[in-house]
Amino acid sequence: MKPVEARVEAVLMADLGMESFETRRLAEAELDFGGIRGDRHFGITAKADVRQPEYPRGTEIFNRRQLTVVSAEECAAIAEALGVPEVKPEWLGANLLLSGLPDLTALPLGSRMIFGSGAGLNGQGENFPCTGPGKLVQANYPEEPKLAARFVKAAYRKRGIVCFVERRGVIRPGDTVSVWVNDGTLQ
Amino acid sequence: MKPVEARVEAVLMADLGMESFETRRLAEAELDFGGIRGDRHFGITAKADVRQPEYPRGTEIFNRRQLTVVSAEECAAIAEALGVPEVKPEWLGANLLLSGLPDLTALPLGSRMIFGSGAGLNGQGENFPCTGPGKLVQANYPEEPKLAARFVKAAYRKRGIVCFVERRGVIRPGDTVSVWVNDGTLQ
Repeated sequence: MKPVEARVEAVLMADLGMESFETRRLAEAELDFGGIRGDRHFGITAKADVRQPEYPRGTEIFNRRQLTVVSAEECAAIAEALGVPEVKPEWLGANLLLSGLPDLTALPLGSRMIFGSGAGLNGQGENFPCTGPGKLVQANYPEEPKLAARFVKAAYRKRGIVCFVERRGVIRPGDTVSVWVNDGTLQ
Repeated sequence: MKPVEARVEAVLMADLGMESFETRRLAEAELDFGGIRGDRHFGITAKADVRQPEYPRGTEIFNRRQLTVVSAEECAAIAEALGVPEVKPEWLGANLLLSGLPDLTALPLGSRMIFGSGAGLNGQGENFPCTGPGKLVQANYPEEPKLAARFVKAAYRKRGIVCFVERRGVIRPGDTVSVWVNDGTLQ
């Protein structure tokens, strides 16, 4: 298997208070097992929620949603579908903005992203759209009608993926990322 | 999605010394994040090996191979292909023997197994056959020719899967297991 190359456009974290999932840009981030320390989604474990019907809500489960990754191409496609100039990764609560992966959201489960430092992420599939990001997009374009309601459909299959940290290391804007698209042979 | 029901026939662990991956039967086991404490594969992390070409060998990575699960039906099929009376889960280094899942090895990545206690495993795909189990099968049937060499082909796609612990809890022989076959919608 030959990995595909992509590029890190931005590294971000969610530490703007308990009420906000919005992220802000960083000069770099240290990936640890569990994610980015201080980020609202950091943790080897997390509480089960409505996304995991196989577990009672609130029980402690392994955290597969440590980081959220979006692509510049898909953010542009969402913006176009909504008729707004841009949709920022900050508004989607993304920790990583990549370019060179127009179909990031379709990456199969278990695909790997390996960064220059050797840090590695294990892709855990589509981050199903929720209404929170739509409200943030709306708040940034108050003159546009019904953005919050239209967001879920506009972002369907373009909303990026969730990941867990498979190997520690630093990630920085400008990094090259080797993407191993899982064809069923990755172990 | 409606889970499929299966049954725990045996719970086992590998603690027979550093040289052996053979497992032995237990009355019950406590699943913790990382696997079964004391088992040779226990750990939130493990060292990358030849199975993970995307990481340098020996680096610390998340351990997706905490437990090995095999099915009674597939063990019987391997035995039949080899022309021997049985292939025991002990010889495959299995931690769990299930019945009611004739196609266990084909379970898609991210399928879940939920036990009576609430404990949960996240399926990480086929455990690619290696030559070690074949040697154990051979050692148990010394009169049969070339079992070790024939094992890899006989066990292809019947060798079971590896898993990581997603929720803690006790597992016991006789437990019912709810198997959520991942159709791409499990989060």
